[in-house]
Amino acid sequence: MGKVYLIGAGPGAADLITLRGARVLEQAGIVFYDALVHADTLALAGQATKVAVGKRCGRISTDQRFINRRLVEAASRYAIVVRLKGGDPLLFGRAQEEIAALEHAGVEYEIVPGVTSALAAHAELGVSLTERGVARSVVFATPRIGPDQEASDWAASVCAADTAVLYMAAGQGAQISEALQAAGMHAGTPVAIVENASLANARQILTTLEGLRDIGDWQISGPALVCLGEVYGTRLRAAETAIVAGAESTHASAGLSGRKVSGV
Amino acid sequence: MGKVYLIGAGPGAADLITLRGARVLEQAGIVFYDALVHADTLALAGQATKVAVGKRCGRISTDQRFINRRLVEAASRYAIVVRLKGGDPLLFGRAQEEIAALEHAGVEYEIVPGVTSALAAHAELGVSLTERGVARSVVFATPRIGPDQEASDWAASVCAADTAVLYMAAGQGAQISEALQAAGMHAGTPVAIVENASLANARQILTTLEGLRDIGDWQISGPALVCLGEVYGTRLRAAETAIVAGAESTHASAGLSGRKVSGV
Repeated sequence: MGKVYLIGAGPGAADLITLRGARVLEQAGIVFYDALVHADTLALAGQATKVAVGKRCGRISTDQRFINRRLVEAASRYAIVVRLKGGDPLLFGRAQEEIAALEHAGVEYEIVPGVTSALAAHAELGVSLTERGVARSVVFATPRIGPDQEASDWAASVCAADTAVLYMAAGQGAQISEALQAAGMHAGTPVAIVENASLANARQILTTLEGLRDIGDWQISGPALVCLGEVYGTRLRAAETAIVAGAESTHASAGLSGRKVSGV
Repeated sequence: MGKVYLIGAGPGAADLITLRGARVLEQAGIVFYDALVHADTLALAGQATKVAVGKRCGRISTDQRFINRRLVEAASRYAIVVRLKGGDPLLFGRAQEEIAALEHAGVEYEIVPGVTSALAAHAELGVSLTERGVARSVVFATPRIGPDQEASDWAASVCAADTAVLYMAAGQGAQISEALQAAGMHAGTPVAIVENASLANARQILTTLEGLRDIGDWQISGPALVCLGEVYGTRLRAAETAIVAGAESTHASAGLSGRKVSGV
């Protein structure tokens, strides 16, 4: 009977996986991977059969029970089975159902944590999630997991924390802006949106909660995080200055209330 | 002029640093490291001069302005300067002051994210921070950063989120239990305490918010996280069963209202 490793691939860039994760991948016989895992990360598993079981905003989807069954089956055929997930397996990774299936079947497993995309995004922003004297709590939330949940709960948790990072949120900028303002967050709250954190096509947009309404104009197609709080204030003000100095026309013609900056 | 890398060493185990972090360490000329960084991680910097600038719950401490100045100075003498921090540099890592000093001095820098200890702790617990249908928000907070901040703010953010992880909190179990119950959290809320996450001497304690009052009895001396929420309910109930079956006397003689389990 083999062992199943649930491994966090990290935020995207292949060299942001852990040493442990990379070592297990090198020895793996089979790897079941998500759509968000980068091809270069997958290439670390040189000897393995690779099976896509991708989920990506509902576009490509494999039934969770089918994944669970395949993991258990694979453990009877391979010494090292890897379930490779973007970011960390236990933060918005839906690993609990796989863990339960492995425990139920008596399959040995181990979880290898990963760098979650919020931390990679902040490394690029150069902003501390918990800047001393400004923020001492940060909430990671998603405006939708499961169809039966009301908006009010996540909005309350976001408003109560000093800093908030919303996962799987980029498509819903207008609704998020509206819900959070209704829940009491100030329209001028600084917002940073980071798309494709850690990848070559990463993009940062600095705006406000009010400006977040126009997120559709920025044509975000990759995975993106919406970050809210006073810790982004310094970068927002710097970006405004930079744009005013060099590219008013771009800003005006795009009709955006937010500002786009590239790099730190 | 050299470049300064602010690198997250990860939660403790040397192989939970990222590939990128390890590669930069191998090339570093000088490394300024925190007290929580493991000796094996530091050993990855084979060619570097190593300088302890540790902070550990106030016991050993180096003035932050002194660290800032040394980083800037080192960049004029070494091509690759590393500031190595436990966990991730931007989550309770106080990196903002160092970033500001480097920007002010015009020194090039890059941040390499790391696995934060909460994710390593949950990998050991085998518990998802955001279990589907149970939790869709998780707050990371600390009951004290800076002497001028009131307890009510962090307690409100903890109560508003579905799952909460408290950093730098182990010494204050009784006060935390009291403050959160006063803020409306139920006394029976499941609690997991993880000490020395990812290290050989890691320890898990499962209890309730009420049982957290007795944290002093467990003699926690390493860095520890206090995790609260319904996602720990399954592990808590399993631990209670296990203890009742095998070690009532230990439990009774220790006079603990919480339960200790080892391993997942």
